[in-house]
Amino acid sequence: MTTAADARDTRDRILDATIRLLRRQGYTATGIKQIVAEGDAPLGSVYHYFPGGKEQIGVEALARSGERIRATIARAGDAADLPAAINGYFVVNAERLRDSDYQRGCPIATVALETASDIEPMRRVCEDVFASWQTTLAQVFVDAGIPEPDARPLATFVLSSYEGALTMSRALRDIQPMLTSGAAVASVLHSHLGDTPRAG
Amino acid sequence: MTTAADARDTRDRILDATIRLLRRQGYTATGIKQIVAEGDAPLGSVYHYFPGGKEQIGVEALARSGERIRATIARAGDAADLPAAINGYFVVNAERLRDSDYQRGCPIATVALETASDIEPMRRVCEDVFASWQTTLAQVFVDAGIPEPDARPLATFVLSSYEGALTMSRALRDIQPMLTSGAAVASVLHSHLGDTPRAG
Repeated sequence: MTTAADARDTRDRILDATIRLLRRQGYTATGIKQIVAEGDAPLGSVYHYFPGGKEQIGVEALARSGERIRATIARAGDAADLPAAINGYFVVNAERLRDSDYQRGCPIATVALETASDIEPMRRVCEDVFASWQTTLAQVFVDAGIPEPDARPLATFVLSSYEGALTMSRALRDIQPMLTSGAAVASVLHSHLGDTPRAG
Repeated sequence: MTTAADARDTRDRILDATIRLLRRQGYTATGIKQIVAEGDAPLGSVYHYFPGGKEQIGVEALARSGERIRATIARAGDAADLPAAINGYFVVNAERLRDSDYQRGCPIATVALETASDIEPMRRVCEDVFASWQTTLAQVFVDAGIPEPDARPLATFVLSSYEGALTMSRALRDIQPMLTSGAAVASVLHSHLGDTPRAG
């Protein structure tokens, strides 16, 4: 007998397995069979829970992962030293990247680049996730005293720097781009908060 | 009769077609048949010129595209106003992206993220290209008077910001991330060159 808890477990396992695969290799290379193997789920369960197949799984996995990351971004607002907290986010994820042997990419960025031109439902979920991160980070900046007209472009700049640094760090198998960008972004933030005179 | 010029033409057409496909959809989704169609080349010619198949074509296409972009980066050194030239690079490519209906991504970034974990020859050419851009841009900065120990991290930061902004602009179908990051990067450069006091 399958209980509601079993069903939730299987569904969750499939989505979390998909997130891991999207981080590592993106959407195109990820097949249903690999998702099933990685999630230790019966093949039939995939089509039972996700009648829309791989695209439905991909959309739900990115939305789920994106919301978790958004919640982490929101928690930066609790930090006493915001630039240090943002820099810390770059550093922690640089270390996770290195510890994963450079496999643990951003689940959104790879899929965004692969699917931007051709697979509209996947592009759209990437758009929604990036937009939610922009809005959340901009609010963190406003709460820290950065004027509203500056907060959103600054949030976009910080997120862009993060995504690009992660791309370079993976290709170079070197965390230096993430550490460098984290420090540079923190310095720009300091100058916006008016608490240090120098930047870059 | 096939002349040396014909051969060169066919080879070039195959590589340039591949670069366009990698910009749009990355490596995994790009197949030999699509390369042949996009390059208007006979199927047999692909295996004649590239006995290593798709991987050989991918490696050569990225090296070719990467070298062209590196030469463009080197030309920034001729600009009277370096921060304006760097910002201009973001703006021009933002407009090209919009004009391509958001299809014209960076050929290196997409492939780097897709193949970083699993396809070592492709990751390696991405590494070589990114490293060549870092070295070239760092030299441009040194020539502009930025101290050598700052030049390389600054180059890495500028390239990371560019790649991430392009990722976000494609997903959002909006050039704002590229324009925002171009302006922010120019401001950081100004502060390193000591010619304006404010940053960000």
